[in-house]
Amino acid sequence: MQDTPKGNRLHIAIFGRRNAGKSSLINRLTNQEIALVSNIPGTTTDPVYKTMEILPIGPVVIIDTAGIDDAGQLGALRIERTMQVLNKADLAVVVIDAGSGISEFDWEMIELIRKKAIPAIVVMNKMDVASIDEQILAGLSVEVKLPVLAISAKTGSGMEELKRQIIKQAPENWDNIPVIGDLLNPGDTVVLVVPIDLAAPKGRLILPQVQTIRDILDHDSYCIVVKERELREALSNMRSLPKMVVTDSQEFLKVAADTPDEVLLTSFSILFARHKGDLATLVAGAKAIDRLQPGDRVLIAEGCTHHRQADDIGKVKIPRWLRQMVGGELNFEWVSGGSFPTALTDYQLIVHCGACMLNRREMLYRLSEAREKRVPIVNYGILIAHVHGILQRALKPFPLAQMIFEEG
Amino acid sequence: MQDTPKGNRLHIAIFGRRNAGKSSLINRLTNQEIALVSNIPGTTTDPVYKTMEILPIGPVVIIDTAGIDDAGQLGALRIERTMQVLNKADLAVVVIDAGSGISEFDWEMIELIRKKAIPAIVVMNKMDVASIDEQILAGLSVEVKLPVLAISAKTGSGMEELKRQIIKQAPENWDNIPVIGDLLNPGDTVVLVVPIDLAAPKGRLILPQVQTIRDILDHDSYCIVVKERELREALSNMRSLPKMVVTDSQEFLKVAADTPDEVLLTSFSILFARHKGDLATLVAGAKAIDRLQPGDRVLIAEGCTHHRQADDIGKVKIPRWLRQMVGGELNFEWVSGGSFPTALTDYQLIVHCGACMLNRREMLYRLSEAREKRVPIVNYGILIAHVHGILQRALKPFPLAQMIFEEG
Repeated sequence: MQDTPKGNRLHIAIFGRRNAGKSSLINRLTNQEIALVSNIPGTTTDPVYKTMEILPIGPVVIIDTAGIDDAGQLGALRIERTMQVLNKADLAVVVIDAGSGISEFDWEMIELIRKKAIPAIVVMNKMDVASIDEQILAGLSVEVKLPVLAISAKTGSGMEELKRQIIKQAPENWDNIPVIGDLLNPGDTVVLVVPIDLAAPKGRLILPQVQTIRDILDHDSYCIVVKERELREALSNMRSLPKMVVTDSQEFLKVAADTPDEVLLTSFSILFARHKGDLATLVAGAKAIDRLQPGDRVLIAEGCTHHRQADDIGKVKIPRWLRQMVGGELNFEWVSGGSFPTALTDYQLIVHCGACMLNRREMLYRLSEAREKRVPIVNYGILIAHVHGILQRALKPFPLAQMIFEEG
Repeated sequence: MQDTPKGNRLHIAIFGRRNAGKSSLINRLTNQEIALVSNIPGTTTDPVYKTMEILPIGPVVIIDTAGIDDAGQLGALRIERTMQVLNKADLAVVVIDAGSGISEFDWEMIELIRKKAIPAIVVMNKMDVASIDEQILAGLSVEVKLPVLAISAKTGSGMEELKRQIIKQAPENWDNIPVIGDLLNPGDTVVLVVPIDLAAPKGRLILPQVQTIRDILDHDSYCIVVKERELREALSNMRSLPKMVVTDSQEFLKVAADTPDEVLLTSFSILFARHKGDLATLVAGAKAIDRLQPGDRVLIAEGCTHHRQADDIGKVKIPRWLRQMVGGELNFEWVSGGSFPTALTDYQLIVHCGACMLNRREMLYRLSEAREKRVPIVNYGILIAHVHGILQRALKPFPLAQMIFEEG
């Protein structure tokens, strides 16, 4: 994940006075779950760029402005530095000590941010010791013309709501992350294994396959498109091995047998779980399947209300596979369409569809909801990979998700 | 074209008494334009299967039943043989000597055909000497419950109408011919050159590219999808050269330079001109561009009424290219949508769109109309290939069209 180009990461600038709790907030955002934090060093007054993974938002760059904050007013030099940071930021978070209230410095920051028209969130921190009621918060929000949240970086209260606000306020197209391109270098080759079965639309390819081909070309790589039966022949016709093989999940075992160990191997489902949501959160959800007990409640959520087929994946196949893994009956409930229930705590697992009718932002919201309620959530593609025993090998291109799988 | 698998060809069975003019009809259908006729020999009483090209219908198999016809009644053996032919026929043509009228043999044939529910056409031949008026024809059609046409195989009158009836009566899906698969053997590799320019839809490939990939996979071959800049590298990474390179027309010259001479090279436009219509007729139309004179009338026909862009191909680019080739002004007229004018004789050239909104049958009708009026017709893709000087090399995979280009 550290290889994700900075350009594909949401850049979040954290502002605030020295005592407002910026560091605690940053630590809490990353939730100590992630070891993959790298600091790009600067001088003491330069902002620090930290590339990290915030679940379920995904790879981000946190711009830690500790070097340019101050208790007093902004001098000309600090204004210049702040503007330089804002030129790079997709989104700004202003951290305020709720006990001290909004200082002159904070007001000037908010003014600068609004002048640059950067999406921003104001957080009133240290709510474990301060007290601000809803009415005052709403009044503040009107006053600063930005969303205002009450949180405690120390206890973690309000953090999931902050993440949801980050997702909500992030600019258009931020969530348009590559399908595969960030895993490739120019000139790399990828082999795509596309079985042609009865489910394939006549004369076409399914959209995820087309999107993957296009993303490979967009990143100056190229691909070989092959049915599973011709894979071995195609590989033997290459002078140098491909960087990666991507296969339809249903052919994974055959393809794994034909793919040399030194070649990365994954599935379209896993690429799109990442493209549409957050792979690490979904992999943690897959691990929760192993802890399910007979009688547990499982919510199956679909993003649209499609016409159900006889052997419907959400109604028939997934319940069957889960019962087999658990070795007993489970209590399934289903929801579909634009709504996602708020009473999630009743469930031991949420199984979500591939979200082809939802955008990434909506899916991240749902993942965030589940995380807040501490309910494991997995999607169809990751679940299928897990119940078929192929998830571990298919995660090799994704170190963070692999780590979560192996340690979870 | 002789390589077109029999399964992809329309099978037309020609029945009729010995003196009805079956042979003349078959000769006239193929119009002596085509040398590529191969007879599969049988015993004297077996039907003969002739694979040939009928313009603009495309590759067909004519089942010549000369061996089983008779002047009298059908015996049990002949009925059995007729039924065997009907089991293989997509369409039947019953040829009747208009001077003699419908014989007992003809009635029995028509009965057998109707019993098998094979689409069929009755032709009253020898109209150069016989005379049947429209009213009698209409009455006959009601009587035999089939379309009845008056033709003269000797003079050629009515032949284009017969071809149009063949196109019209041919069964569903007959016109669903492969994009490229009939040119490949299992295990062949094809390199597809897909430039990513501003016109490419974001995150997708255009449909003809997707259809070509799918058709390659459907025919147990596989493909390498590459931008023009990576073509040379992709070729050098292959242990054995590909069977064919298919490129977007706009990159043809660069791709031709990077493709070894022993590799077949064509364009998506040419594959789809063939898939959607009849390549040989369109290539003959392209040759007619060379004979255009300043002041000539050119009809530009589009199958749909799309939103025109500033640099519209039909309104701006094609007129500009044609003026440059002719070295003077031309009189352009435009039609669009579902209608195709009947007064075609006023034009020296028809330029038709790629017909993405029309099915093959509709396009073949229009080609047939133009052929009957002896007006050359070309489509956008073939015209572009010709004005850019790439048509000759791009026709190498298509011997008949290549012959027409070189001799026309």
